[in-house]
Amino acid sequence: MQKLQAIADLLTEVKTKKPLVHHLTNYVTVNDCANIVLALGGSPVMADDAAEVEEMVAIASALVLNIGTLNGRTIDSMFLAGKRANRLGIPVVLDPVGAGATTLRTATALRLVQEIELAVVRGNIAEITALAGGSAQTRGVDAAGPCADAPGIAAALAQKLGCVVAVTGAQDVVADGSRIGLIDNGHPILARVTGTGCMATSLVGCYAGVTRDYFRAAAAGIITMGLAGEKALAALAPDDGIGSFRVKLLDQIDRLTPEEFIQGGKYHEA
Amino acid sequence: MQKLQAIADLLTEVKTKKPLVHHLTNYVTVNDCANIVLALGGSPVMADDAAEVEEMVAIASALVLNIGTLNGRTIDSMFLAGKRANRLGIPVVLDPVGAGATTLRTATALRLVQEIELAVVRGNIAEITALAGGSAQTRGVDAAGPCADAPGIAAALAQKLGCVVAVTGAQDVVADGSRIGLIDNGHPILARVTGTGCMATSLVGCYAGVTRDYFRAAAAGIITMGLAGEKALAALAPDDGIGSFRVKLLDQIDRLTPEEFIQGGKYHEA
Amino acid sequence: MQKLQAIADLLTEVKTKKPLVHHLTNYVTVNDCANIVLALGGSPVMADDAAEVEEMVAIASALVLNIGTLNGRTIDSMFLAGKRANRLGIPVVLDPVGAGATTLRTATALRLVQEIELAVVRGNIAEITALAGGSAQTRGVDAAGPCADAPGIAAALAQKLGCVVAVTGAQDVVADGSRIGLIDNGHPILARVTGTGCMATSLVGCYAGVTRDYFRAAAAGIITMGLAGEKALAALAPDDGIGSFRVKLLDQIDRLTPEEFIQGGKYHEA
Repeated sequence: MQKLQAIADLLTEVKTKKPLVHHLTNYVTVNDCANIVLALGGSPVMADDAAEVEEMVAIASALVLNIGTLNGRTIDSMFLAGKRANRLGIPVVLDPVGAGATTLRTATALRLVQEIELAVVRGNIAEITALAGGSAQTRGVDAAGPCADAPGIAAALAQKLGCVVAVTGAQDVVADGSRIGLIDNGHPILARVTGTGCMATSLVGCYAGVTRDYFRAAAAGIITMGLAGEKALAALAPDDGIGSFRVKLLDQIDRLTPEEFIQGGKYHEA
Repeated sequence: MQKLQAIADLLTEVKTKKPLVHHLTNYVTVNDCANIVLALGGSPVMADDAAEVEEMVAIASALVLNIGTLNGRTIDSMFLAGKRANRLGIPVVLDPVGAGATTLRTATALRLVQEIELAVVRGNIAEITALAGGSAQTRGVDAAGPCADAPGIAAALAQKLGCVVAVTGAQDVVADGSRIGLIDNGHPILARVTGTGCMATSLVGCYAGVTRDYFRAAAAGIITMGLAGEKALAALAPDDGIGSFRVKLLDQIDRLTPEEFIQGGKYHEA
Repeated sequence: MQKLQAIADLLTEVKTKKPLVHHLTNYVTVNDCANIVLALGGSPVMADDAAEVEEMVAIASALVLNIGTLNGRTIDSMFLAGKRANRLGIPVVLDPVGAGATTLRTATALRLVQEIELAVVRGNIAEITALAGGSAQTRGVDAAGPCADAPGIAAALAQKLGCVVAVTGAQDVVADGSRIGLIDNGHPILARVTGTGCMATSLVGCYAGVTRDYFRAAAAGIITMGLAGEKALAALAPDDGIGSFRVKLLDQIDRLTPEEFIQGGKYHEA
């Protein structure tokens, strides 16, 4: 409960500090990522050209690297932005979208975790397993099934990389070298809207922009997404579907209070 | 009626098999295409880099090529992905967005139909006419007027290309070398939302991922879009406009049942 | 009042003439820009490849250049499209997104205003100040604070560039070499949705496509956005947030009548 309180406090921090979150992200879900950052209280900026990413990240509070529609040009920019962020002490959050699905994605994600010092990596179990050097069932950018030992895989990768690792799924896991947090918020309907993973990562980016405790930032982002999903689902009218759910998801992020966060958050440490 | 039943059966197939639909598509409507695939029950994946499209399409059930914001880099990727799909027997659905409006679009669309074996081409009458080697009034990416002989043009092009040709408009036409299907679902409001054509193509891609009868797949995609448009319009409150219509369109795709498909589908063969 | 009437008349012109508005714009807000053009009554087309932009702009009524996610490839295309538009007498509207935030953006915006003859430039005070050769507080793509002399800065830049300059903020300013229009519509919630600036520019592009009076076109676009924002806010239910606001914004653009424009428009000249 005290731990959840400390996590919920970050919501107030975001609304107060309005962190600028620089994204190099895919063109599929970029608009949703920008709007969810605004909904939470942060300020998004998207820039991906090699000629400007180092300058842009220098004014940001956090950097989000999302490899959802990577290409040769934007991969180079990701390394430039990431390395500059590292030199400046700006936290870098990675979403290895589709790692495991193609060689380009797996290799790029692996190079990023090797060459960039990350604050948080957030992915589904297939992506995180690919980063851990194993193989998991993937269907494009979606994990193909549940995983018995997500906490173990996350903790091992966290120790190996020296950063926080978050795995989202039926139960979400956040791990650093010593702690394992388990989150039971959310609902399967979230997987029926594109970009809810990317959006969760952007939320983590916001929170990472206001604290040096990236474990807490990762937990905050993932609880926020799960809670908003639950509340959006509860707000649906009988004739609504995923179109309305998607709109209400943004509404609920916008309206979420620290009190609701504490009341609704389902968090414990293993 | 039996024919409509057979078309409606594909909806159940999509929900059961959850086809992975690989898109190389434009950045204007890509998010809507991803969400409509999810709403129908499929799984979208977007990837456009030459270094990964062949690997990505190999795990897909169907490939959608949409030239809406084509450029030199993505054109090359379309050919790579399309040729690999052909070798693997994965159906390729083409949306020749804006063919007829610029030389680049017309030439690219013509090269695609020549070099890639297509399952379905879906466009408006201006685009299909451009592919057929004629000229039609176009306004950017929109057809500028109705057309007396859409069925004739579609049937001739289908025969020439050896694939299914779908022309959407006031009355929609689906043709292969022998059959002509006519669809009277839909409403002009659909043309007031960007990307409803692209989304129809993505739906066709989903259906093509679960059957070898691409004529039926094309009809299913276009009936689905038209029916959802009708139902979304009926669900509008007095103060709603196209913003709400767009949300409800996704809701209706999500909620559409095979029973409603059969009850509402307005399909006959000429 | 007569002046407001003349501005409101342009709404009818857009609905009658349905101007085709060619955009070279960013991938963050491009879908919203396309939908808002459709909602107003125009027709959007997005194309950014050097091989087709000159041909595409030649059939357009107006060209919108938005540097939101610029890169080397699209910058070249912007100059090609802009110069062709100039030769053909097609109005060019510039949105210098993030000018002042990075050298690339400032330099590109400055080159565009030097080499392309513009009809209208629309930005926030930080962007417009950067174009005027000064420096202003910026946070990525958002202005960091109010400005005492927006009218003075806008008027000076308008005179220097020989085009209309629009500055959006708490009070919006439209200036050409001789007139200064002040607009008091809108609401701070508009800044909590990504792309409302881009969308305002696209609306200006629509209006510029139906008149040679670009001062009036700029005022029309900005009043339209502000009014729609007010009406969308008023239409929110108690549990709604920015997700619903964004949907209703599009609804209100769609439903706006010249009568409401005149009743609600808060416009005067300084």
